[in-house]
Amino acid sequence: MNDIERNDLIDWFKTTRKHTEAICKPLMVEDYVLQPIAEVSPPKWHLGHTSWFFETFILLHFDPDYEAFNPQYNFVFNSYYESVGERVIRVNRGNLSRPTVEQVYDYRQHVDTAILRFLKETDVSAELKKLMILGINHEQQHQELLITDIKYILGNNPLFPVYNAEYVTNKQCSAGSSLVFQEGVYEIGYQGDEFCFDNERNRHKVYLNKFAISSELITNGEYLEFMQDGGYENFSYWHADGWEWVKKNQGKAPLYWHYHHGEWHRYDLDGFKVIEPDVPVCHISYYEAFAFASWKGTRLPTEEEWEVAAGQLNWGARWEWTESAYLPYPGFKKEKGAIGEYNGKFMVSQMVLRGASEATSTGHSRPTYRNFFYPDARWQFTGIRIIL
Amino acid sequence: MNDIERNDLIDWFKTTRKHTEAICKPLMVEDYVLQPIAEVSPPKWHLGHTSWFFETFILLHFDPDYEAFNPQYNFVFNSYYESVGERVIRVNRGNLSRPTVEQVYDYRQHVDTAILRFLKETDVSAELKKLMILGINHEQQHQELLITDIKYILGNNPLFPVYNAEYVTNKQCSAGSSLVFQEGVYEIGYQGDEFCFDNERNRHKVYLNKFAISSELITNGEYLEFMQDGGYENFSYWHADGWEWVKKNQGKAPLYWHYHHGEWHRYDLDGFKVIEPDVPVCHISYYEAFAFASWKGTRLPTEEEWEVAAGQLNWGARWEWTESAYLPYPGFKKEKGAIGEYNGKFMVSQMVLRGASEATSTGHSRPTYRNFFYPDARWQFTGIRIIL
Amino acid sequence: MNDIERNDLIDWFKTTRKHTEAICKPLMVEDYVLQPIAEVSPPKWHLGHTSWFFETFILLHFDPDYEAFNPQYNFVFNSYYESVGERVIRVNRGNLSRPTVEQVYDYRQHVDTAILRFLKETDVSAELKKLMILGINHEQQHQELLITDIKYILGNNPLFPVYNAEYVTNKQCSAGSSLVFQEGVYEIGYQGDEFCFDNERNRHKVYLNKFAISSELITNGEYLEFMQDGGYENFSYWHADGWEWVKKNQGKAPLYWHYHHGEWHRYDLDGFKVIEPDVPVCHISYYEAFAFASWKGTRLPTEEEWEVAAGQLNWGARWEWTESAYLPYPGFKKEKGAIGEYNGKFMVSQMVLRGASEATSTGHSRPTYRNFFYPDARWQFTGIRIIL
Amino acid sequence: MNDIERNDLIDWFKTTRKHTEAICKPLMVEDYVLQPIAEVSPPKWHLGHTSWFFETFILLHFDPDYEAFNPQYNFVFNSYYESVGERVIRVNRGNLSRPTVEQVYDYRQHVDTAILRFLKETDVSAELKKLMILGINHEQQHQELLITDIKYILGNNPLFPVYNAEYVTNKQCSAGSSLVFQEGVYEIGYQGDEFCFDNERNRHKVYLNKFAISSELITNGEYLEFMQDGGYENFSYWHADGWEWVKKNQGKAPLYWHYHHGEWHRYDLDGFKVIEPDVPVCHISYYEAFAFASWKGTRLPTEEEWEVAAGQLNWGARWEWTESAYLPYPGFKKEKGAIGEYNGKFMVSQMVLRGASEATSTGHSRPTYRNFFYPDARWQFTGIRIIL
Repeated sequence: MNDIERNDLIDWFKTTRKHTEAICKPLMVEDYVLQPIAEVSPPKWHLGHTSWFFETFILLHFDPDYEAFNPQYNFVFNSYYESVGERVIRVNRGNLSRPTVEQVYDYRQHVDTAILRFLKETDVSAELKKLMILGINHEQQHQELLITDIKYILGNNPLFPVYNAEYVTNKQCSAGSSLVFQEGVYEIGYQGDEFCFDNERNRHKVYLNKFAISSELITNGEYLEFMQDGGYENFSYWHADGWEWVKKNQGKAPLYWHYHHGEWHRYDLDGFKVIEPDVPVCHISYYEAFAFASWKGTRLPTEEEWEVAAGQLNWGARWEWTESAYLPYPGFKKEKGAIGEYNGKFMVSQMVLRGASEATSTGHSRPTYRNFFYPDARWQFTGIRIIL
Repeated sequence: MNDIERNDLIDWFKTTRKHTEAICKPLMVEDYVLQPIAEVSPPKWHLGHTSWFFETFILLHFDPDYEAFNPQYNFVFNSYYESVGERVIRVNRGNLSRPTVEQVYDYRQHVDTAILRFLKETDVSAELKKLMILGINHEQQHQELLITDIKYILGNNPLFPVYNAEYVTNKQCSAGSSLVFQEGVYEIGYQGDEFCFDNERNRHKVYLNKFAISSELITNGEYLEFMQDGGYENFSYWHADGWEWVKKNQGKAPLYWHYHHGEWHRYDLDGFKVIEPDVPVCHISYYEAFAFASWKGTRLPTEEEWEVAAGQLNWGARWEWTESAYLPYPGFKKEKGAIGEYNGKFMVSQMVLRGASEATSTGHSRPTYRNFFYPDARWQFTGIRIIL
Repeated sequence: MNDIERNDLIDWFKTTRKHTEAICKPLMVEDYVLQPIAEVSPPKWHLGHTSWFFETFILLHFDPDYEAFNPQYNFVFNSYYESVGERVIRVNRGNLSRPTVEQVYDYRQHVDTAILRFLKETDVSAELKKLMILGINHEQQHQELLITDIKYILGNNPLFPVYNAEYVTNKQCSAGSSLVFQEGVYEIGYQGDEFCFDNERNRHKVYLNKFAISSELITNGEYLEFMQDGGYENFSYWHADGWEWVKKNQGKAPLYWHYHHGEWHRYDLDGFKVIEPDVPVCHISYYEAFAFASWKGTRLPTEEEWEVAAGQLNWGARWEWTESAYLPYPGFKKEKGAIGEYNGKFMVSQMVLRGASEATSTGHSRPTYRNFFYPDARWQFTGIRIIL
Repeated sequence: MNDIERNDLIDWFKTTRKHTEAICKPLMVEDYVLQPIAEVSPPKWHLGHTSWFFETFILLHFDPDYEAFNPQYNFVFNSYYESVGERVIRVNRGNLSRPTVEQVYDYRQHVDTAILRFLKETDVSAELKKLMILGINHEQQHQELLITDIKYILGNNPLFPVYNAEYVTNKQCSAGSSLVFQEGVYEIGYQGDEFCFDNERNRHKVYLNKFAISSELITNGEYLEFMQDGGYENFSYWHADGWEWVKKNQGKAPLYWHYHHGEWHRYDLDGFKVIEPDVPVCHISYYEAFAFASWKGTRLPTEEEWEVAAGQLNWGARWEWTESAYLPYPGFKKEKGAIGEYNGKFMVSQMVLRGASEATSTGHSRPTYRNFFYPDARWQFTGIRIIL
């Protein structure tokens, strides 16, 4: 690695780490600690866990002089890496007041300083570079999770506190057009020399039937029509599991929507407000996305269709549920060791989402990117695009 | 429909209905009533439900003279057809001692007589024929479920009662050979004029990479090696969900296996006995099938690969877990009304199984047949085939 | 023991054992097997368990020649005697189709024959006599449980099958009168030479304030007034735990009551029928009894008050909830061994009920008898008497 | 009320309010927010709830000029007063990061200022005085809960943070002596003109048998003997519910005890340390207290025995489990309105504890004081005294 490359890497690392802290800027200390549902991790856990990732996979692995900030932090900030020792189980993350927020920031500082010194002094090997880039991408993923989790922590509070009054919500002004693709063999999957996750490989051929896809996302206004047409009361639009979900959760609107004084409102990071009809609908489960598409008499795209069409789609406002289950591509191989736990072990019972969202860090996504969640997940910035 | 066709249909109906009762022949009245876990329905429920299917979708629909045997039976024997009225929820099927077994057999008799009279007297329309064939196939599916559920009811009893001392277990004598298929476009899905389920259509093209698949199923002996090599103690072979399942259920062997006097035994329909090494392993979850394949350094086939290879595989002893999630084929459309609830609404969070099992009714399966269960299901006759 | 005493004991044993079977006479085989809720045991379990009691504590203990009918039955029919080996956990009783009903009757027959032969041949010691009488009283307790459990099994079935069309429900015609007792020291607890349970001893002195108690039980009609006055909607009548219970179970009427065609009905052993206003209310929890009394501006009697007044009360139709928790009397000592597990270990978190019910076997109860259940239990024949 | 009385009341109020804040002094902001188990409320909730009590029952009730600090706080800080509007359900208290700790202190300040001004300006009626004293006693109860909850929040953290290195644990040096009381009529319950809770009245006569009670509490050393003698492995010492509790929770020591490097340690507010044999055992459930007494061949005292003996007992280090269920005294009447919800509605399924603990505020308890918890509660400072 030459000096220019090294400096680029150092800059990228610094920018990324700073951006994480910028996201937390509007928080009060109390906001850092909560875990109101199992899926939502406390912000201070995200801050610690991303630092732990660099400490464990870079510093403790490559730097013989590095001393761990606090050996007990491995127990506290390890997430799901079974191969890296015991860990606080996920549902208990919100039961720990210590380390304090200040201590977690000290931990970040300690790791940042050590990484920067190490990068400057060492000869950056290909393996080290690869893990640094993985760590940066990992931190970017947690940047989006920080935003989703902060939104849940604040939006679940009956006082509906504002995160940032300037927070701008995406608008979708144009009407959707229909993009048609012919039957045939296409290629999907990552190709190139930049970073991608292991689950985006191998690039491979798929055979697709002819399809037409909307260039635009479904809006709040369109979703409201579904609701007002009895969408949540008619099982015929739903999967059996989805219908159980509706009945059990008394589902009748997207997450953060509230019927108030005769009108639908929603909580967003800039506060509580009346639904805007032309904004892409957000915070819906796969079950709801599927039901909406059924009601429309159509279906969601598969991830292959989405990727083939990506160049012509208007995407990036919402993670878009596809009709594809999250499964390995042909030739996928888990890496050895802890890094191999990154993606492969989640390849069952989850659905693929494509695109990116208003909460995704700049430059983090790409047309081959495969996001995945369980079909009942709603706290992510999830939306709908349909086959026409 | 001419008279020969009509007589064939009548014979098929009669044979099928009798076979269901033959399966129940060895049961005591008490065995008909239980539901030891939610997935296992009481045998008398299967007897009633299959009759209800013919009553509801044929007799009450086509025969204006038919009188329901007992209008309350719709409530008791409807399974999941939301569009056909309220129903006893699934987990409560085992809480009903009435109707008695004798009454359920009377109900069957009543429906059989009515169907036979009706088929003889009426002009069998295409729609009627289609529903009769669906009803027969539906009953065949419940024949296999009857066997799996009876096995659970008896095998879960600490007295290990014998169902049938003559019950013969499949043997697999030959060593597996490797079947190789070249990269390219293949066609899968049902094509023809015979019956198939809606989920087997449309026939469509798929692009497959080169693969090699074993001609034979994995045996008890091979699975025991996995167990003895610590397969259930090493998370690296498992999905994250699978590892949770292992820890929660203290999984360490297939269902019905018991370590007894220093040796692994298993319950089968002919009683409790020592494990036979050369019999295909049975009653494993998708999680276990996947972990076994990972331990072998390989993977399960996709359903497309399986179907392409089917002509050269030795199949029929076990339902074979594939690496494919249960999703619609291109062009799949749910039918209108209750019949449309048959398959489509289960297309989320389940995995496809291909082949057939020793418990599958003769003639029921075919190479395009798509069975599906949740990844933790073990009470079916499920087994493993691997990619080589 | 002289011959007259011996014959009396033999007669009592025979009569009791026959009465148990008479209770089961109207059942179908299917009814014997179910356990629709954890508290309800399958009738065949009661038949087996009462026989196991005589086999374990009499035959295997005193008769060196006795051979157990089936050694595995200890596992199946032991209830909660931790000191007598492992057992099927309570919630799994309804998951066993074997032994069959016929086998259980054979077991009873085997035990009866052995007991009768043994009693005729042996010198009946005081200890043996004591255990025989305990076994008979134990069987009488299970006779009432059989009736309550059969009622639940049938009454929980949407077909509402009749147990016995001749079954007569108690009527209460007279208006209640107020019985007044003066302040002072009273004695309660069993005194005498006949059988009593260990929890009825020691007889001891208690100091009571002046109180007035109703001679009669609360009727359906009176309870309906409470319901119609919003009793189930006003938390101020309820314990905090009771109010949680109401909300969680959407409580709005006693067990087995159904609002049907504009009128309250109830299931009883003679079938489904309109509520009779002058019959004592039945199948209510302690929470409901307490709330009713609060609504009336009064309270339930303590068990001490009840016992002091017993001679002047009209009792025997319902087990009457008292305001007393089930705790040991002064000087209470658990017996050694398995018999010591009979009563003492339940002395926490349960409430005392006094009296007897229409389902109690003749001669089984007495004024000092202490029945006990958790405050949410409703499937017993429980009712209300109030302090005036 | 004359000026001296008024000033005394004002001083008492100020001292009490300040003491609450002193308890929280060693906390970090993060510690104020957590609810690791349902029973433990976040410290900031206690701070807010005690202020809400004065605001709701004094200021909003008596002071026409008072303006609520924030009308939404009623929803957030109401605990269980059904009659004072909706509330955040108990298990969700730990899911609220807002109001912040600082805002809660502002709320306290607002209420304190308003109360002090109001008390100085108004003519203090008997009713107002009564509610002020109730509010002060209520706050003292929450002072003890603050200490128990803080201990749980810190002691549940794997880092075992110290609350206060100077925290002094009670020592018990003297050997216990046996205090004997003769059979006869005694009086118990509060008598006098000072404050008592409604559950301490009416003073009434009870008849007690002769008993002997230990003057001292059971120590860690004595409890360790019970553990080492297999107390947690022998069901015969336990209630059936207690034995279920042991098996379900794998109980083998008091709360906060850890076996570490071959020795039993415990967490206390001054940190993690080796068990001290002569300190009264703490943090045990009623089930454990009962099992210990059974193992000793004796029992716990009843609350009547305890109160009669109180003058000669060495008490105040631990809340002492009694063998008495929490039930109303003769003549007990719930007050009208929200204040009536204070005690009466908890009178089912809980056990009485007598005495006080090292965490009880000075002057808060008295010999007639009745504390109460469910039999499985361990996070309070609970201990054991036995009948000899």
